[in-house]
Amino acid sequence: MAILDDNRLFPIEPSVRAQARALYDGVRDLPIISPHGHTDPRWFAENASFANPSALFVTPDHYVFRMLHSQGVSLDALGVPRADGTVSDVDPRDVWQLFASHYHLLRGTPSRLWLDHAFASVFDVQERLSASNAGAIYEQIDAALQTDAFRPRALFERFNIEAISTTESAIDDLKWHRMIRDSGWSGRVITAYRPDAVIDPEFAGFADNVALMGQMAGEDTGTWTGYLAAHRNRREYFKSFGATSTDHGHPTARTEDLPQDVAATLFDKALQGTCTAQEADAFRGHMLTEMARMSLDDGLVLQIHPGSFRNHSDHVLAGFGRDKGYDIPTRTDYVRALKPLLDAVGHRADLTVILFTLDESAYARELAPLAGVYPCLRLGPPWWFHDSPEGMMRFRQMTTETAGFYNTVGFNDDTRAFCSIPARHDVARRVDCAFLANLIATGRLDADEAPELAHDLAYGLAKRAYRL
Amino acid sequence: MAILDDNRLFPIEPSVRAQARALYDGVRDLPIISPHGHTDPRWFAENASFANPSALFVTPDHYVFRMLHSQGVSLDALGVPRADGTVSDVDPRDVWQLFASHYHLLRGTPSRLWLDHAFASVFDVQERLSASNAGAIYEQIDAALQTDAFRPRALFERFNIEAISTTESAIDDLKWHRMIRDSGWSGRVITAYRPDAVIDPEFAGFADNVALMGQMAGEDTGTWTGYLAAHRNRREYFKSFGATSTDHGHPTARTEDLPQDVAATLFDKALQGTCTAQEADAFRGHMLTEMARMSLDDGLVLQIHPGSFRNHSDHVLAGFGRDKGYDIPTRTDYVRALKPLLDAVGHRADLTVILFTLDESAYARELAPLAGVYPCLRLGPPWWFHDSPEGMMRFRQMTTETAGFYNTVGFNDDTRAFCSIPARHDVARRVDCAFLANLIATGRLDADEAPELAHDLAYGLAKRAYRL
Amino acid sequence: MAILDDNRLFPIEPSVRAQARALYDGVRDLPIISPHGHTDPRWFAENASFANPSALFVTPDHYVFRMLHSQGVSLDALGVPRADGTVSDVDPRDVWQLFASHYHLLRGTPSRLWLDHAFASVFDVQERLSASNAGAIYEQIDAALQTDAFRPRALFERFNIEAISTTESAIDDLKWHRMIRDSGWSGRVITAYRPDAVIDPEFAGFADNVALMGQMAGEDTGTWTGYLAAHRNRREYFKSFGATSTDHGHPTARTEDLPQDVAATLFDKALQGTCTAQEADAFRGHMLTEMARMSLDDGLVLQIHPGSFRNHSDHVLAGFGRDKGYDIPTRTDYVRALKPLLDAVGHRADLTVILFTLDESAYARELAPLAGVYPCLRLGPPWWFHDSPEGMMRFRQMTTETAGFYNTVGFNDDTRAFCSIPARHDVARRVDCAFLANLIATGRLDADEAPELAHDLAYGLAKRAYRL
Repeated sequence: MAILDDNRLFPIEPSVRAQARALYDGVRDLPIISPHGHTDPRWFAENASFANPSALFVTPDHYVFRMLHSQGVSLDALGVPRADGTVSDVDPRDVWQLFASHYHLLRGTPSRLWLDHAFASVFDVQERLSASNAGAIYEQIDAALQTDAFRPRALFERFNIEAISTTESAIDDLKWHRMIRDSGWSGRVITAYRPDAVIDPEFAGFADNVALMGQMAGEDTGTWTGYLAAHRNRREYFKSFGATSTDHGHPTARTEDLPQDVAATLFDKALQGTCTAQEADAFRGHMLTEMARMSLDDGLVLQIHPGSFRNHSDHVLAGFGRDKGYDIPTRTDYVRALKPLLDAVGHRADLTVILFTLDESAYARELAPLAGVYPCLRLGPPWWFHDSPEGMMRFRQMTTETAGFYNTVGFNDDTRAFCSIPARHDVARRVDCAFLANLIATGRLDADEAPELAHDLAYGLAKRAYRL
Repeated sequence: MAILDDNRLFPIEPSVRAQARALYDGVRDLPIISPHGHTDPRWFAENASFANPSALFVTPDHYVFRMLHSQGVSLDALGVPRADGTVSDVDPRDVWQLFASHYHLLRGTPSRLWLDHAFASVFDVQERLSASNAGAIYEQIDAALQTDAFRPRALFERFNIEAISTTESAIDDLKWHRMIRDSGWSGRVITAYRPDAVIDPEFAGFADNVALMGQMAGEDTGTWTGYLAAHRNRREYFKSFGATSTDHGHPTARTEDLPQDVAATLFDKALQGTCTAQEADAFRGHMLTEMARMSLDDGLVLQIHPGSFRNHSDHVLAGFGRDKGYDIPTRTDYVRALKPLLDAVGHRADLTVILFTLDESAYARELAPLAGVYPCLRLGPPWWFHDSPEGMMRFRQMTTETAGFYNTVGFNDDTRAFCSIPARHDVARRVDCAFLANLIATGRLDADEAPELAHDLAYGLAKRAYRL
Repeated sequence: MAILDDNRLFPIEPSVRAQARALYDGVRDLPIISPHGHTDPRWFAENASFANPSALFVTPDHYVFRMLHSQGVSLDALGVPRADGTVSDVDPRDVWQLFASHYHLLRGTPSRLWLDHAFASVFDVQERLSASNAGAIYEQIDAALQTDAFRPRALFERFNIEAISTTESAIDDLKWHRMIRDSGWSGRVITAYRPDAVIDPEFAGFADNVALMGQMAGEDTGTWTGYLAAHRNRREYFKSFGATSTDHGHPTARTEDLPQDVAATLFDKALQGTCTAQEADAFRGHMLTEMARMSLDDGLVLQIHPGSFRNHSDHVLAGFGRDKGYDIPTRTDYVRALKPLLDAVGHRADLTVILFTLDESAYARELAPLAGVYPCLRLGPPWWFHDSPEGMMRFRQMTTETAGFYNTVGFNDDTRAFCSIPARHDVARRVDCAFLANLIATGRLDADEAPELAHDLAYGLAKRAYRL
């Protein structure tokens, strides 16, 4: 793997590098626990070959196409589907050539690390991608993709994935998960319960979504109590496909614990589409507390992913739809926002609420102090734009002194880029081992304590926090 | 001291480590100036033995019990007193065993550094605390505590404390301070004037507190002018017990400089309990400016400690009362908040206002620029959750380039954990020497300038800023 | 140059230091592109000698005098002019002595680096400035200043400045620029269009300023359309003196894209002085979008410098006027603030909008994600208080992983301190080479990619982004 430095991301001073290396050698081959992500269960259900290198590495990867787009490359030229369902008539080989000729834009980014790792370790590419070798590398990867060894299930096994969670809407019928289960394949692909479409009054088609949920659950979701019952039913259904967690992507971390009659009234307004923005926000906030109460009953771990301003560009939203790299982080407050939920159930050690952030200023100020005292709280790993070497190091530097290691939950790859999964976990394992080696070298941790910690950060914490 | 690395917290590269070491060797044995903290003056007044290891290290230390609690250990099991004054019937040896069996939770935290330092250097413990050696270490520490050499005054002298300030309410009669003074003991234990109970209209018992202050001061605190006179009187009383500073723990950094008749009207409302939250906030803000004006007369240094959301959990507040680890930092603005006070007195170089923060994002953006220009302003050291190696390094990295070193005031331990005082000052001295060594190694400071700076950071700045 | 460490600001570990050194050796002598700053065009027009060392290094440098002032030195004693135009009767030699005797206050600051660099490399000073050598160094510098080799144009050439931009008000007649052009001197000194005085309804003399602009442009600025036409005219005029950019220093990053009739109404109110604070803010915000639209026509690069709370001290503003070190950064939001402008023109790759910040918490959270996707956006270098070694390193660490290198624009010195220009660019080149060397040493960049990047960061990016 000539394009990868075997000591990448380790500390520079030789003795500390050796310490990090030794810790890493003890965890590098551990199975991957991927408790939160966005891979497509259809891949594992149908086990069809991936179409071509561009469809695997460029078109679906918002990290990649947003960077090229930021320098003037049009989304059409990259074959990104338009909002109306059409795709520009572009040859995947031309997309690849365009990608390769802009590969320098990714210098210094985690995408570069992930791509080089996937090219080298999955496809045995020996040279850094460039305009001049783009064609040859395309053919090399394309040829591999046609073979059985590069079908989704084979890669899953080769990646040494012990368990992976996809994320499905509460009104998904989980047919691909059913197909996986029915296939008898041994790979552990589970789902997670993502009810934004039936919790957020501002979600497109909210009332219809709620009605559909009622139908799927056999409950009358025209009433508040029926609506709650339908959630309980769907959560059980998701659990039957392995779900151990729920996930909530709200604009803010706001929670509420409203009287039931007030919540019921908001729900009615939401169904009728008469909620104000304020009321919609209050309803979303209240539902987080309802979800937490249900978690006390059914054991699902609650994940909160707040603070993304979605689809920031009207222009791109109109032309290309959602999830086109135009989601931008915003300042997020947790201290006042989480208080209602925490006052309701925060003291329960049998509840697990995992907090994520896109606002690093909250790490040391709010999140570590909260997770360092509330029994139910845990800190999710650095998320999205912060899922990077510098981001991971800042996370440890800003949370460990107040929350320790055991209020964190290991790594989430959170990705739909399948081949980046081993790369991402490898980055996390390297950075954590580097962090531990630095603690040892500065007398803040004894060397005999570090291997256990490295193992937990790479494997044990994720498995335990997500109840896998 | 096998459990402490002699080079802990120094830079890793050998030549820079040697430089830091040399600087540290020049300051490690300097006397401790502890100008702001929360030790109990009764210890030094009565000079009674500490009860047992758990009562010394676990039950009163919110850093410790919050971490265990965050992982599901109940406060009752740790012997933390309940709000009603009762204490669960728990043997201190069991508390210690529980603490020891969770000692791994503190990996990577400053508490671990402080505890190891105290165990090793104060009690000559030779092994890292664990479930298996917990009993033996308990007995070792317990035996020492029964001896005269481990009474408060003996430890004070052994810790080489030149001066320590406790913090008392404006309506405290300072009887323990009087007892210390009357005892003829030479230890310099002074008080600091903390008037929150008589300045914050939302403080429990505000009107009664103000009445009591009037009684103690011989002033009619039913009037605004009498109230101000009572403050002046109490400040003098505190000065007679060595006070050189006042301290203010407000929710925000807000200041006001209201017309006297407006302030008087707010004061009347406050006494009658009819202030709105807004008015209470304005009154607190105005009183900071009044305090600053009094400081111009009597020379007391004004400390502002804003930004803590106190007693965040209703559940724990109801069960266990205040100060149970549930104080959470919030975002704090200084630029607009401090303007009224600064417009009133900020240009006076004979006034010293020391600013603290729990919001590190304010260091480079607001606090260093403010302290780097206003003659009255100084920056307090990294506070509370940021009193840690990473926190201290960030503080220097984010404030020095704009505020320099001489607008900072050395170290505050700010602690009620007596045995952690030498450990905390040692951490600060090590980190500051590491910072200086890095500046030298990168050509930003000449080697001949560093010893003077190291001395000032460890000793001189605190002594001068606090007028000790 | 004994007072400068030849390896300053490079990484400490020897092999990485050597790597940084090699990269730096490839860029240290590149010409200086200074695309944004505040040097006085009169210097280059008249080419008169600088008056004396204090007038060159102390009196006009707010970084320097604010630090001395923060420690109680009066602005009068430093010869800073008062608001009424008078200057205290102080000998420049006394100012210099006062400066020298407080030189230790600058330890650890970038000013110290810049001053030492200027003293050593421009004036061949061999000793660190101190109270004892102040007189001799004053005479040494003063003597040099009397010679032709130290006149502005000679220094410009010696500094190897390829192009420098000053900044002039939209209603400046650019007479100094005309004089430079008419002189036939080959130095490239260009202007930049700064229309705050005619865009900000709260600017002193707004209506008069607008009327004057109308007169200069031959347009009726009593009407909205005439006002816009006058801007277009003045922009062309500035372009005829080399301008390639506009610059906007607003309190916030707010933008608006109002209907033309609404904008016209606001403009009328602004002229009549009846705008509320809210309306003034909306008008400023709308004008940024108008400026961006004009940029699409005339190609000027748009710079936004938001977030400074100007003239924070009423006391100093009254006594000494604007720009006296009392400008304090504030929290700045970009995500919502920029949306109107970005929705209007953000997708245009032929537009360049360069964003600056004084709020580092926005780097990773807002600015890098925005610049990493919008085709028109670029990130300006660390600004003002953050133009420092630690500030530059944080900038790269917090922006590169999301925005890459190519959405940044090289270095701006942004200074009126002429002799600091080579020093500032040298600091930027060193820090960037240090950053690149660290990437290589940790396997995040290939060694063969770094020289091109170092060249771009030192030279190419600024030249291309500013269309120079």
